[in-house]
Amino acid sequence: MRIRKAVITAAGRNQRALPLQTLVDRDGTEKPLLCILAEQALAAQVEEICVVVWPGDESRYMQAAGKLAPSIRFVAQPEPLGYGHAIWCAREFTGADPFLHMVGDHLYVNSGAPASAQRLIALAEAESCTVSGVQPTREGLLPRFGAVAGRRLPGRSDLYRVETVLEKPTPTEAEQRLLISGLRAGYYLCFFGMHVLTPRVMELLDGGAYTLSAALAELARHEQYLALEDDGRRYDLGQPYGVLIAQLALALNGPDRPQVLSQMLELLADRELAGSRQ
Amino acid sequence: MRIRKAVITAAGRNQRALPLQTLVDRDGTEKPLLCILAEQALAAQVEEICVVVWPGDESRYMQAAGKLAPSIRFVAQPEPLGYGHAIWCAREFTGADPFLHMVGDHLYVNSGAPASAQRLIALAEAESCTVSGVQPTREGLLPRFGAVAGRRLPGRSDLYRVETVLEKPTPTEAEQRLLISGLRAGYYLCFFGMHVLTPRVMELLDGGAYTLSAALAELARHEQYLALEDDGRRYDLGQPYGVLIAQLALALNGPDRPQVLSQMLELLADRELAGSRQ
Repeated sequence: MRIRKAVITAAGRNQRALPLQTLVDRDGTEKPLLCILAEQALAAQVEEICVVVWPGDESRYMQAAGKLAPSIRFVAQPEPLGYGHAIWCAREFTGADPFLHMVGDHLYVNSGAPASAQRLIALAEAESCTVSGVQPTREGLLPRFGAVAGRRLPGRSDLYRVETVLEKPTPTEAEQRLLISGLRAGYYLCFFGMHVLTPRVMELLDGGAYTLSAALAELARHEQYLALEDDGRRYDLGQPYGVLIAQLALALNGPDRPQVLSQMLELLADRELAGSRQ
Repeated sequence: MRIRKAVITAAGRNQRALPLQTLVDRDGTEKPLLCILAEQALAAQVEEICVVVWPGDESRYMQAAGKLAPSIRFVAQPEPLGYGHAIWCAREFTGADPFLHMVGDHLYVNSGAPASAQRLIALAEAESCTVSGVQPTREGLLPRFGAVAGRRLPGRSDLYRVETVLEKPTPTEAEQRLLISGLRAGYYLCFFGMHVLTPRVMELLDGGAYTLSAALAELARHEQYLALEDDGRRYDLGQPYGVLIAQLALALNGPDRPQVLSQMLELLADRELAGSRQ
């Protein structure tokens, strides 16, 4: 199994502007989040990218894509029928092929190599199955994510065969169905926002009637479905101060770290001075 | 003299996207820089605002203005003939009236009241003359600003009658012509990016043939022209990491400071942890 396609979803009503947010990438150049995500996919040997957008956003996105435009095509989600339906809108693009899926409002930062997309793809290609990136996540954040449970694979501390998938579980549901031995108390394995999905998942979305979590739960009942722990960091630009924190994470993980740190300290000192003058 | 109009310039080739950058304001709501600037003008009793834009940017700006749109009109600068010319493009809007001028790519943050725009307008109305906001600025930053020299007014430590104006002076020029007694060594009074300009300044721009600094230098030779030291902070979004630093300044000066500080510390700790794992 080879992964040569990627689908980025960017059609959510409150998320559609986020992929167009400009950030200074670690290489010091300004680019929209869309391009940072696309570059991460291309660096993982993906060749074609489909971005699912709100109808009418195609031209703004095309413009934002800049020199990456030849690798990207756009598909509109005709109605706001949710996240599972948005993925399903890319079915003609994905056809009979497996594909990398990234959500368009998250930024992924890996401080070491290899990058999250590369690790996921390598595993999916080796195992020929669907793989979700997951991360131990504290209970208080469960309302924001899909979560999985399953058994650790022998000899691997970061790899699980998934048995259960729940979308935004309550703490009670999580405690009853998602406990994983070996995780810190109060932590669960939540989706990282990055998956490799097989054509079977596209079928299980069934016209977009099901959420991605529901389709993956069904998949886990019938075939091997793996979850890989990711030690990168994921920043949701849709959270309060999400863009600020994502930009800080990029800047503090790149060569401009000293400059940005010193400006941060200046700001903090300045405010204390201003306070003491009042 | 009453100030009821404001002109915001936003037509610079590399600056035209900056007023559209979304920031979380101190009140916790997201808005484009354009709206933050317009609200500061309106809070200083300005009633009508003219934004000078790159031709064709009107509709994007109109959209960004949102509920402030009724107070804002747009004028295109037909050719990129510089900053002085951009101000001059608002001449039909300003007519025979004095006006507040703000540059569209700067964010102004005052930790105490009153705000910079209010202080400038109050002084201009009381003295019936042109007033520029200035700030002691270290020599190394002279290539970025216009600078003034003059005599402190009796009994006021923050107010100058301007005699000399130089645009982006060299350190040698500054040392010869712009020294101000009482300022820290190596510091000069540079423009803060906010002025109250009289109709006479509009005439002196002479069709945009002159820079604002040249027009103000000419003005100072013939009539009273004041400079007011501002203790607010100004952030140029066009500088490297300018948006990041401006956003941090807003967040650290508002009620969300504790939340943002703790996220900053988390990021710093996280990076150290990631480093130690490698």
